Amino acid sequence: MKTSPTLGNRIMAWSADLATHTDHPGMLTCAYMTPAHRAVAAQLDTWMHDCGFDEVRHDAVGNVIGLYRAAPSAGVGVDSETNSGTTPSTAQNATPATSKPRLVSTGSHYDTVRDGGKYDGRLGILLPMAIVADLHAQGLRLPYDLEVVAFAEEEGLRFGSTFLGSSAYVGRFDSTVLEKTDAEGITMRAAIEEAGLDPAQSAHCATDISRLKHYFEVHIEQGPVLLDRNLPLGIVTAINGGVRRILTLTGLASHAGTTPMDMRHDAACAAAEIILYVEQRCASVPGLVGTVGTLQVVNGSVNVVPGACRLSLDLRAPQDSMRDAALADIEARIEEICQRRGVRCHTEEVMRKTASACAPAEQALWAKAVAAHEAEVYELPSGAGHDAMMVGQVASMSMLFVRCGNGGISHNPLETITVEDAQLAAQVTASFLQELAATC
Amino acid sequence: MKTSPTLGNRIMAWSADLATHTDHPGMLTCAYMTPAHRAVAAQLDTWMHDCGFDEVRHDAVGNVIGLYRAAPSAGVGVDSETNSGTTPSTAQNATPATSKPRLVSTGSHYDTVRDGGKYDGRLGILLPMAIVADLHAQGLRLPYDLEVVAFAEEEGLRFGSTFLGSSAYVGRFDSTVLEKTDAEGITMRAAIEEAGLDPAQSAHCATDISRLKHYFEVHIEQGPVLLDRNLPLGIVTAINGGVRRILTLTGLASHAGTTPMDMRHDAACAAAEIILYVEQRCASVPGLVGTVGTLQVVNGSVNVVPGACRLSLDLRAPQDSMRDAALADIEARIEEICQRRGVRCHTEEVMRKTASACAPAEQALWAKAVAAHEAEVYELPSGAGHDAMMVGQVASMSMLFVRCGNGGISHNPLETITVEDAQLAAQVTASFLQELAATC
Repeated sequence: MKTSPTLGNRIMAWSADLATHTDHPGMLTCAYMTPAHRAVAAQLDTWMHDCGFDEVRHDAVGNVIGLYRAAPSAGVGVDSETNSGTTPSTAQNATPATSKPRLVSTGSHYDTVRDGGKYDGRLGILLPMAIVADLHAQGLRLPYDLEVVAFAEEEGLRFGSTFLGSSAYVGRFDSTVLEKTDAEGITMRAAIEEAGLDPAQSAHCATDISRLKHYFEVHIEQGPVLLDRNLPLGIVTAINGGVRRILTLTGLASHAGTTPMDMRHDAACAAAEIILYVEQRCASVPGLVGTVGTLQVVNGSVNVVPGACRLSLDLRAPQDSMRDAALADIEARIEEICQRRGVRCHTEEVMRKTASACAPAEQALWAKAVAAHEAEVYELPSGAGHDAMMVGQVASMSMLFVRCGNGGISHNPLETITVEDAQLAAQVTASFLQELAATC
Repeated sequence: MKTSPTLGNRIMAWSADLATHTDHPGMLTCAYMTPAHRAVAAQLDTWMHDCGFDEVRHDAVGNVIGLYRAAPSAGVGVDSETNSGTTPSTAQNATPATSKPRLVSTGSHYDTVRDGGKYDGRLGILLPMAIVADLHAQGLRLPYDLEVVAFAEEEGLRFGSTFLGSSAYVGRFDSTVLEKTDAEGITMRAAIEEAGLDPAQSAHCATDISRLKHYFEVHIEQGPVLLDRNLPLGIVTAINGGVRRILTLTGLASHAGTTPMDMRHDAACAAAEIILYVEQRCASVPGLVGTVGTLQVVNGSVNVVPGACRLSLDLRAPQDSMRDAALADIEARIEEICQRRGVRCHTEEVMRKTASACAPAEQALWAKAVAAHEAEVYELPSGAGHDAMMVGQVASMSMLFVRCGNGGISHNPLETITVEDAQLAAQVTASFLQELAATC
């Protein structure tokens, strides 16, 4: 296939258009099942039809799924710049074969955080839509069914229900979230019904997992690594697993003027040692990150030695074993610090998430696709969670990261990508689809 | 003189009685010019008369000052267990000589913090009152006028006007504080008038500084040092000077999952380094103390690398040079830390107080008095501020600390001393008065 040189422009224009639908004028907020959210779903439906998808369905939770059917033949249905030699089929021949073809799926989420950016999630929907439009315009098909999924909800802004869309798509929807309420007391069930959908079906709207060969997701990096290394694209090795804890240190509050340094049980000093150990331990292993994001002396006063200090710990790693080894070392150090300082530590674990490895075979295909476009092959873990984690529970998955501008900022109106990077990402993804075709 | 063996009991009983006057039933709070505060002043007046003071006056700010006149002769007016040989004069002979005698002054404050203790301040009023009662009962006088001053206000609870009583006593009253208002909008001026005093006189009620030979103050330690060393008494070397600053560190908030450790500008990590350096630097010098008492990541979130952190710094030392050297080292280290981490630091100095050295000659007299009672002579600086700092601006001053129980806690209902320590402190103070007599 020939990739159109205007895919990047189309992706940028679509992103700008979608961003006009917002819950809060003056910023971009698109929370689950609000009027803005439903307008985005309707717009994606229209565009998917325009692109030439054969079917566009809305499932019970609001996912919008465009299906581009496989070529009827079993062979590789794409002409290739790099792997030439196969004969393109035509759109007219797009009738399914008697034995159903395999399914490849891609997508991301169309909801946003409050005052978010235009590309988080949406790039992973619009980019493959643009490729399908390109294929359709050239009368080309792939040897597998391709579903482009616009997941209705991943951020959990309105109901705290993260990964809602992808969980329904893979048949792992947790029906108890239907009873969650938003800030105004509206249940998710009522919000779904208001949109004309049937929440009773939300646990029964999985795609055909038995045919699902692979899921991939194109996403902005949401971090500074690619920008810093001057690279447009990165191949994701794994979506980091994580653990979050809240630590409460209890020392002894005493008079800042009259308590000699060697008679103190200072909870803030204990916290300081912990913070620096977390930093040092995590810096020693590539891919591992550890953060103390909240920190406060409880009832602190300028002239009182801190009696209590509360802090959070967030640890993430591409392998659970890496995270757990760091956690064990940090626990041991906390115990040593507390023992030495006469401080007690109460620990509450508030989250634990398993790391999701990207499929090695498809990582290799991404590398081939990236190299085919003379870009540098660079691998990195994903520190943030993505729908690919959820779909990865039932199928092999992979991810391509696209460089963010403005220091790598995301979840922020300053979030940005360049049209050139969008174009390159689309070209590389089109090549990846061909590489996948060769394996079907 | 013979010291009565019941001075300690009398001091403890008086302290308990005074504590029944409170602004908040169920706890001890005695804020400036409240009904409880005025009741305490009236009670002290009555007791001072009962003790045999020759005059009891209330000055314009509510200080209650008992005067026990010098013996008419110029000689030492006390019989001594340790320095025998002088002839006691009798109370009947207590007419001032034509040339006025010298003045020695002692006291402390009778206001309290909110939910405070029974001994903070008040011990330094009641203990010399008990000694005067003892002198009077034995018909003994000293070769100097002795003023026992119950300062109306030191804590600044109601109007934020710390050292109010002692500043008026030495003629350094700041009249602008009269316009300060309490939480209910009542001005200090109105509160003083309500008590039947004349605020216009508050700048004109100094004692006769030209005759003031020495001021001393007996106070609970308000710290754990004497308790820890198993010592009932301590001789104060200096009242620490101090400096207080608020530091605001500004780094760069970023995603805790996607920002590699080596690309962070973490304001909390910078704060942690500062905290530990303050601790280490201050621990290296006896007498120096440094505290980060308030600490908070600003707008922190578990999954965000801290972009800003605010913390306080409180440094105290018995000599200003010691404090300033530590401060200079801490400043240099902060600059180095911020430079290395790409973090900015904004510093606001909110307090700077000069250290007040206790008079070496009188420290030596205290040592003699302590040794005379077979107690160990132990010297320590005062980490907390006291009225002696204010009076020390116009006269030589000294202080005796009495051991606190319960880990040294003060400004708290758990604040306590033992009757034995109160008795010993009274005996030592009586001996100190004799030692002073020998120098007049």
